[in-house]
Parts: sequence; C-alpha cells; structure tokens
Amino acid sequence: MIEYRNLRIAVLGAGSVGAQVAALLLQHADELAGRVGAGLELVGIAVRDLDAPRTADIPRELLTTDARSLILGADIVIEVMGGLEPAREYLELALTSGADVITANKALLATHGPELFAIAEQVGAQLYYEAAVGGAIPIIRPLRDSLAGDRVHRILGIVNGTTNYILDRMDQGGDSLEQALAVATELGYAEADPTADIEGFDAAQKAAILASLAFHTAVPVDGVHREGITGVTREQVAAAQRSGFVVKLLAVCERLVDPETGADGVSARVHPALIPTTHPLAAVHGANNAVFVEAEAAGSLMFYGAGAGGVQTASAVLGDLVSAARRHVVGGPGVAESTHADLPILPITSVTTRYQITLSVLDRPGVLAQIASVFSEHDVSVEAVQQSVVDPAADGQDGNAPGATLVIGTHRATEAALAATVAALADSPVVARVDSVLRVEGL
Amino acid sequence: MIEYRNLRIAVLGAGSVGAQVAALLLQHADELAGRVGAGLELVGIAVRDLDAPRTADIPRELLTTDARSLILGADIVIEVMGGLEPAREYLELALTSGADVITANKALLATHGPELFAIAEQVGAQLYYEAAVGGAIPIIRPLRDSLAGDRVHRILGIVNGTTNYILDRMDQGGDSLEQALAVATELGYAEADPTADIEGFDAAQKAAILASLAFHTAVPVDGVHREGITGVTREQVAAAQRSGFVVKLLAVCERLVDPETGADGVSARVHPALIPTTHPLAAVHGANNAVFVEAEAAGSLMFYGAGAGGVQTASAVLGDLVSAARRHVVGGPGVAESTHADLPILPITSVTTRYQITLSVLDRPGVLAQIASVFSEHDVSVEAVQQSVVDPAADGQDGNAPGATLVIGTHRATEAALAATVAALADSPVVARVDSVLRVEGL
Repeated sequence: MIEYRNLRIAVLGAGSVGAQVAALLLQHADELAGRVGAGLELVGIAVRDLDAPRTADIPRELLTTDARSLILGADIVIEVMGGLEPAREYLELALTSGADVITANKALLATHGPELFAIAEQVGAQLYYEAAVGGAIPIIRPLRDSLAGDRVHRILGIVNGTTNYILDRMDQGGDSLEQALAVATELGYAEADPTADIEGFDAAQKAAILASLAFHTAVPVDGVHREGITGVTREQVAAAQRSGFVVKLLAVCERLVDPETGADGVSARVHPALIPTTHPLAAVHGANNAVFVEAEAAGSLMFYGAGAGGVQTASAVLGDLVSAARRHVVGGPGVAESTHADLPILPITSVTTRYQITLSVLDRPGVLAQIASVFSEHDVSVEAVQQSVVDPAADGQDGNAPGATLVIGTHRATEAALAATVAALADSPVVARVDSVLRVEGL
Repeated sequence: MIEYRNLRIAVLGAGSVGAQVAALLLQHADELAGRVGAGLELVGIAVRDLDAPRTADIPRELLTTDARSLILGADIVIEVMGGLEPAREYLELALTSGADVITANKALLATHGPELFAIAEQVGAQLYYEAAVGGAIPIIRPLRDSLAGDRVHRILGIVNGTTNYILDRMDQGGDSLEQALAVATELGYAEADPTADIEGFDAAQKAAILASLAFHTAVPVDGVHREGITGVTREQVAAAQRSGFVVKLLAVCERLVDPETGADGVSARVHPALIPTTHPLAAVHGANNAVFVEAEAAGSLMFYGAGAGGVQTASAVLGDLVSAARRHVVGGPGVAESTHADLPILPITSVTTRYQITLSVLDRPGVLAQIASVFSEHDVSVEAVQQSVVDPAADGQDGNAPGATLVIGTHRATEAALAATVAALADSPVVARVDSVLRVEGL
C-alpha cells in the first residue's frame, strides 16, 4: 500500500444527497481509506443557510457559506447542490484550480456538459457523474467503459422514478393520473411543483447524457424531443393492459440512418410509450429505474435499481469519489469524454417506430375500408386491427348512433407520416374521435 | 486529440471468443481508434493448430503458433485461450515484459488471481477481466468502481447459462433434468462433457471472483461451497412452482458475522435454491445471466444480459481493450486490486438461510406434532407447513399405508442445525422419506 497524504474533500450542497454523502463519508472513513490508499478528509460542506434542517446528522462545524474558499482548498469537489448557477461557476473554479470534480447535476451536464468536459481535459482533471442518471444504478461507467468496444444501437430507459410510480399505480391500481400524482406527492415521490418530472424535463436531461455517452456525440438537452405523461389517461392504460402492453415514460436514444441524407445520425426522445408486458422493462415497478441497452455484439443488457433517493444517489457519488481518489493517488489524468463520432442529431420527424391508434368510429358497413385507405394513402402499414362495439350509453359523449372502437397497430412508420395520417383520420366523416395515439417500443 | 503511435494488440486463442474479438477488432478499427486516440493494430493471434476451423473470418497470416514472440512484441495482450497452463505462464510473461493484459479466463483468475494481480501491481501494468463473469454483462466495473464507495452485503447471481437453460426448461416445459440437458447439448448450450456447468464448477469460479471484488478480500475457488444441479428433480421444480417459487442455481456471496468469533467474515457458495417468482431473478429465462446486488446505500441493483456466447463475450473483452488502450495513451498505471479488507472466509456451516423441506410421512394423528418437535429440538424454527394427502397408488414407492406430504418452510437457520434436523427427520419412525431439502434465497 502506497503511503499518501490525506485527500481534502469538499461537498457543495447539503440537501438529501449531500447530507448522506457527508454522513457516509464520515462513517466509513477508514474503510474508504483502505480502498483508496489514502485518507479522505471531509474539509467542509458549502450551504446557503447554516441553519436549514438536514436529513442526516452532520457536524455543524463543517458547514460554511463560503463555497469559493472551500473549493480552492480541496483536492476533490463533490457538487450535489443542483441547478445551473452557481453550480456551473463553482465547477469551473474547481477544475481550473486543479481539483477533480464529481457531480450529480443532470441539468448542468445536459446544458453545459461539453464546456465542462473541455475544461477538465485541458487541465488534466477528472469529471465524474455516475449519480446524474439512474441514481444508484451504475450506468455511466458501463456505457463509457464496458461498452466502449461495442456499438450501441438503442437505449430504452425508465429514468424518472416519479412518473414510473404514477404510471405503475395507474396500471396496477387503476388510479387516474390525478389520483396517482396526489399519492406520489404525499409519499414524497413527487415534488410540490411536479412539472420537471411529469412533463419529462428530468428524463430529457438524462436522455441527453445517455445519448451523448452511447453515441460518442454531444447531444444537448434541446436536441431531445420531449413529451410528458400529462396526456396519459386511465382509459389508455386499461386498454394497453387488455392488449398485452404497459404504458411507460421512456427515454429512447437511437442510432439511425437519416432518411434524407442516408448517413448515420442519432435521435434522443422522451415520451410515453407502450411496451409489451413480456419486456424486462415492463417489470420495473414503483419508483425504480432501469436502462435497457441494445448493442451490436453484447446483445440486450439491462441495469436495474433505485433511481433516486438521497442515500442511494450518495452510493453513486461515493463510488465516483473512490475512483477519483485512487487516480489521485496512483497518478495520471482522468478519461476524457469521447465525442469523436460527432453524429448529426436527427429531429423526431426522422424517427420510425410503431404506433397504436385508438379511434371511436361510426358502426356501419364500409368504415374499416375507409379507415384502412387513410392509412395506405399516407404510406403507413397496418399490422393489426381490433374492433369492439361500444354501448352508446356507456360512451357518454355522442349517444346519437351506435359507435365502435378500433385499436389499430401499425408497422414501423415515420413520425411525419403518422402525424399526417392522424390529421386525416380526425377529418374523416366516419371517425367520431381519435382517442389515443401511442408509440410502441420494445417489440 | 493526442497523436499517438499505433498500439500493438496480441490475441491468445482463436476459439469462439478469440475469433470474434479478432474479427470485431479488424472490422471496427477506425471507430475504436477514434475512441482511444490511437490506432489498435492486431499484430497476431496465437493458436495451437493453424488449420483448426474458426467461427469467424480472420486472416490466416495473423495466426501463429509462437505465442511467446507474439507476447514480447505486444503492448496489450488479450488472453481468451482458457485453462490454467500455459495461460498463467503467458500472462506472467506479458505482465513482466511490460504489456497490459485482458483476460476472460475465470478458472485462471479464481485459482491464480492474487499472484497475477500482485505482479500487475508490482510492474504498474493493468489487468482487466470484465468478460470472466457474466459474458457481456458489465458487472466487474460496477463492483470494482461504481460500488467502491458503498458496502456490499449480498450478491445473488445466475452466472451459468447452461444450468439456467436446463432449470428454465424444467420449470417452463416440465422436462426432466436428462431431457433438458439433452436439448441443451443439442443446441450447443451444454458441452459434450457438461460436468463443469452442471456440477457448479464454472459458477463457483465466478462466485470466487465476485466475492473477492465485492468484499475486498481474496476468495479462492476452493473457499467456495459448491453443489450442482444433478440432484434437482422434476418433482422438486413442480412443487416449487405450486408454492410460488422457482429453482435456480445461485452463486451467493455474503458478508456475515462469524457466529463463533462475532467478527465479520464472508461466505461464497453455489447451490440450487428456491427464489420467489416475484423476485427479479425469477424472470431470468433461457441461457441469460443476471447478478443481483444488495448494498448498504445503493439498495438492490440488478445487472442482466447474455452470460455467454462468442460475440457477446467479445463485447466485454473489447470494452476492456478500449479502457487499457486509453490508459496507455493518457498515461498512469491501472487500478490495483483492492483486498484491504482481508476478511475471513467462513465455511458453509456458518451460513444461515431459510429452507424448504419436503417429507413423505405417515398419515396418522400426532405426526405433525412429532415432526415439529424434531425441528424445535434442533433450534430450527418452522415458519409454514403445507400438508397434502397422497394417493398411495400414485406414490408408487410404499403403497402399504396412506401417506401424506409435508412441505415445511423454516425461518433462518444455520446449515449445521439444518443438517442435524434433516438427519433426525430421516431417522424418525413417522417419516417415510425426506424428499427434498432446498435453500430459499431472495425472500
């Protein structure tokens, strides 16, 4: 074992993750020192308010409001404060002053990642962020290192625990979105303002990070197509169940051929999607996360675990800390971010996938033929149609004629062709209503 | 991007993994060079027989029978030949001559791992082995790096695809062990001599590697308690199904308190076990592998994917190659193996777990009380008893009296107490036969 001076660790932020990082670091100091070959000394925790309540027991004398001085005296800076500023400014200060950096800040990476990675490479510092996606689940290192010799084709990720909890309640318990959200809020799975989760902003940030890593291409968060779950109804979830599917909010990252240029490109998108109940992702319940990766040589892999939570996320942060500290002891710069592929980022209109469309139609002869011709006029190929006659009394919207419901599954089609098809269906005299349009993944 | 001379790569072995490694390395040379920042030049492939058939198309001029000269001219040596010798000798030569080493050889690591890691640390070389456990599934890096700041309590692994395929057929299709093994052999999932798989030797090697990593303690393969699946019957599998369980061959690695000393220790074992059908491992079908990890802060994590196969395993080897090559380019030694904890390795008798015991008993009043007293005399606490009267005609073994079957689930008990209980049950006048004793994991 190499004898080495203690490494000075600074933590920025003492929220649910920061407090657990500090507590575990103090509690397991000897064990971590054994793994690193040097002591890890927590020199301070930068906070805005010295008197705010904390979720873990941390010595008050470690708290400081002077983040800058703390950063300038540290070997390794752990940023778990969140938000864009001053987090960005602090990390830039840390890197340029020669410290290694660990962050759990997905918003920061999805927005300012490339400039931070460039600074880190320039000064030979390390920048780790295992905790930014999937909480405790190791997914950054597997994508960056384990799959570095393979070619990733597709990632399907359940990367937001709040929305998975809500959709799982709607699926398993028959809740409405509002009911499920209310329970999620009460249990602390959803924040008072749930917008970031239910509108897919959080998942889109994670999709940007995963796509950048998997495809060796800087994918900014505004290159990610985003749809949240606020349009998902109890009826859609129940209908999905009847046809062997479950509705999940998926982050989908794909390597594609650009239909216009014929060259390779990448797409990252977040939207609710149907996946077959036999798919491993369908078994991801509650607030858990999972990332399903399809690679050329490795085939299908899945990484599953707790996607959030203070102590779980702290596990990922401390794993990064041990990596950074070991490298500090044995020497050598960190691994630079790899964006050599630099593929074009394709818009959602270039994506092809399957769809399930639910229509309320008039129940009269010839309707199916008219609907089928709308699909074929727009080059969307129908794979399966299920028809059920609806009791007009139960329908409740237009009781003037007996209605029927058609559930139409398509073969792969482009988003553009599908959008044109749906517009034409809505205008069709035999269609009373387009009830639902959902993408299907994982078939 | 740093300009750097080509790195010289040697491959030892051109079996199903080696041939795929060579083929992918040649095919994706430019892409890999972009990721590494230097060219990766395959300088040769050492084989025993130049004319043996290969599973992938590799240029004949790269083949050589002179492994030593090949090794001495290489920057990075990839060992995918298998077996203990000459693999051990070649890797020692590679390390001492200054090359970095990648191996997929679980038998070698489980037997000579500590001496090879010591040489690597001494000369400052890297030794990577992601492919040795779980084929394409990234599990070594997550345990070594991502969870390095956490404390692993338990690993439950399905780490042998052949036995999982056999047990899955017995469970899903009602096959006998012999029938399922015959199909596995025909499909190439089992080798002509299936001993290494079905007797648990392969899984025990992987358990030794996982336990060593997870507990920072060198665990040799002969410290792993091993039971294969040859004793598992169709009746056991069917009975397990009826009570909500599935039989899996598990590698179980646990951090325990030694009941004798009260100090921490580790146990590694391989045996068939019942797991609840609701456990994520129960959904691992066919020849797939999965490793379920329980850690103090991270909670439960699972890593799932193809556990074997030439091209899948090649993915893991090439991931290691990119890691080793990047480090070669940016400088700095590899990460040393961490065995600082050096915990004692506990025998199977120190382990406590739950059991399910199936007994054929006489169907007469007072039998249950007599059986219950056998358990309590040996300090084994009964959690649940299911009784079913057996049609003597269907039983076929002793038609002399109406019999009954008792399925008894226990609370946690030591292996020693359980063994004494089973011996006493076998001697009991009311017990016709001990049909089955299985450990229960994952509850």
